[in-house]
Amino acid sequence: MTGRMPAPAPPVGSPRVVSFAALHRFARLAFERVGLSGADAATGATVLATTDAWGVFTHGTKFVRDYVRRLKAGGLRPQGRPRLATQGPAWAIVDGDSALAMVTSVFAMETAIAKARACGIAYVSVRNSCHYGAAGYYAWLAAREGLIGLSMANDKPSVAAPGSRGAIIGSNPISYALPAGRHRTILLDMSVATVAGGKVYAARTRGERIPDTWLVGADGRPTTDPGGYPKVGALQPAAGHKGYGLALLIEALAGLLSGAAFTRRVGDWLWDDGTQPTDHGAAFVAIDIAAMMPLDEFTRRVETLVDEIHGAPRADGVERLFVPGEKEWNHYDRALAEGLALPPDVVASLQEAAQMTGLSFEETLPAWHRI
Amino acid sequence: MTGRMPAPAPPVGSPRVVSFAALHRFARLAFERVGLSGADAATGATVLATTDAWGVFTHGTKFVRDYVRRLKAGGLRPQGRPRLATQGPAWAIVDGDSALAMVTSVFAMETAIAKARACGIAYVSVRNSCHYGAAGYYAWLAAREGLIGLSMANDKPSVAAPGSRGAIIGSNPISYALPAGRHRTILLDMSVATVAGGKVYAARTRGERIPDTWLVGADGRPTTDPGGYPKVGALQPAAGHKGYGLALLIEALAGLLSGAAFTRRVGDWLWDDGTQPTDHGAAFVAIDIAAMMPLDEFTRRVETLVDEIHGAPRADGVERLFVPGEKEWNHYDRALAEGLALPPDVVASLQEAAQMTGLSFEETLPAWHRI
Repeated sequence: MTGRMPAPAPPVGSPRVVSFAALHRFARLAFERVGLSGADAATGATVLATTDAWGVFTHGTKFVRDYVRRLKAGGLRPQGRPRLATQGPAWAIVDGDSALAMVTSVFAMETAIAKARACGIAYVSVRNSCHYGAAGYYAWLAAREGLIGLSMANDKPSVAAPGSRGAIIGSNPISYALPAGRHRTILLDMSVATVAGGKVYAARTRGERIPDTWLVGADGRPTTDPGGYPKVGALQPAAGHKGYGLALLIEALAGLLSGAAFTRRVGDWLWDDGTQPTDHGAAFVAIDIAAMMPLDEFTRRVETLVDEIHGAPRADGVERLFVPGEKEWNHYDRALAEGLALPPDVVASLQEAAQMTGLSFEETLPAWHRI
Repeated sequence: MTGRMPAPAPPVGSPRVVSFAALHRFARLAFERVGLSGADAATGATVLATTDAWGVFTHGTKFVRDYVRRLKAGGLRPQGRPRLATQGPAWAIVDGDSALAMVTSVFAMETAIAKARACGIAYVSVRNSCHYGAAGYYAWLAAREGLIGLSMANDKPSVAAPGSRGAIIGSNPISYALPAGRHRTILLDMSVATVAGGKVYAARTRGERIPDTWLVGADGRPTTDPGGYPKVGALQPAAGHKGYGLALLIEALAGLLSGAAFTRRVGDWLWDDGTQPTDHGAAFVAIDIAAMMPLDEFTRRVETLVDEIHGAPRADGVERLFVPGEKEWNHYDRALAEGLALPPDVVASLQEAAQMTGLSFEETLPAWHRI
């Protein structure tokens, strides 16, 4: 009905429904504008747009702006090429060459998949990388090929140890993915903190108190005041010593054994000036199911487990028992059919990314409606 | 001073201080009495007495009685021999042949260590096993040899899924161990439940309410009443969907991919009549650090991390920040120097084990005092 009249620019931070294809194209073009090859730009766009399609908007294209900033400042190298620094039959260490971490991480997981097909299992660690987005994407790459995938990464400290006054360890994400036959891939993506820092910021913005399991204050004690974080205080580890203990395992596999920076040596990828590499570490594991058991026998066992969960008695008011990833796949299906409803903060960030790269936000990322 | 006068039998359930050597010998003799070879009996005794020395009395020699019961009833086979059912370069599946699970698990981890030395990493899963005691022992076997070790196992359901009315998944333990140079081995051994069922029983015995994060009641809602468990209700997963998600990963690696029983198909090793195999599954992973980085470079990095934690600011009243396993190693050192102070429930269980195997409790496990 409206013809080709140029639409007025949306107010900054309005929600916006866009197609997956347009969002992917926007991210790809933004990365190309700052010097990435078409292939690398497409890899980065695929990881981030898929993450948004899962509904994980905190780790998707919202960060194109921030990666672009680093790519322009030199802390990320647009022409960086990840390479195998050392390797053996069932392992490798990848030097990320300060490339966009999505490019390095996909390369590393693909290496793990190939080596797992030869040996049954493989472990590939990464150094000289940066923030890699959602851990789950890389685990899913393995599951998509019929393997079990694990993905994990370190980061600068934001999480307390039990009894510490400040942050000791990163929120160190870990993810796994399991092929599940007629069900969607089981996909868990979690950090070792009770909640993400973003939930603390959101409570502060709304002027609300927070549960006393989320944060410790300046004195190292649980607090219900979200006010000081992240300048003072730290996130609490999930389930206390359990989340803290898992964080150290992830630090060992992603940071210590890869030769990457660890704990406070990891650069602040989001808030520093962007000129220096952050030297994040990561680790990827692939397990080739078909080497050990016919794949369809394994997936039948997974199907039985999932059916058992879906059929189990529920507490009053609970409509469904979910397996990990199920909510994300439901969001994914809706997003591809009906478009992605980008939250206002994501729209605002993408508008900044457009400005930084000279893209027309309106033309590259048109509001989208089903026909 | 007392010569060789026979001491009066201690009242059932008294605490008792014994030497590590005597406790080990007691467990070894008990296993030999029910038909295990000297080597297998010693393996079982080493796992269980070491667990007690770590202070983890809930998973140590207290269970000799229960393993002996199964070994006599036939659900565990005294002459069972774990064997490699299938294998590849960096993986194997072990059929436990219903042998004592400590024997099978040590065999499986030793297989993983050998294969990791050849390939960098190895994954060995186990089927046709039983309750394997403390997950941490097997992870430590790898760390003692300079490798990173992981150990995990499934069990019959005792833990709820978020929103479920009853138990969905086992408390599925997972453990890892990291060589730490001049520090003691970092060793985490955790279940995916908020707390062990034993803590619920203990609160019930004392007539106390429990925190509302431990248990769901018959209606699937959090409860502070420990009364019904385990007949009704279920343990809550640690950190909600995170503990639940990890439980499913462990089930996949230990139960689904090994060909073992999974979830409710796993036998009730503690409370059934002991005549049938339980078909528990387990999984072991070893990573050969030295293939990837000089071992002393890795352990220096671990030392730096541990020193950083020990030196970090603490909340008021907190005397020390611990790394996983540190409390257990402190207990271990004291236990070997000053004897193990067996809690009353362990003493009572060992007295039953003595009766079942025709051992003299007093002579085999004398009360021990430092000279």
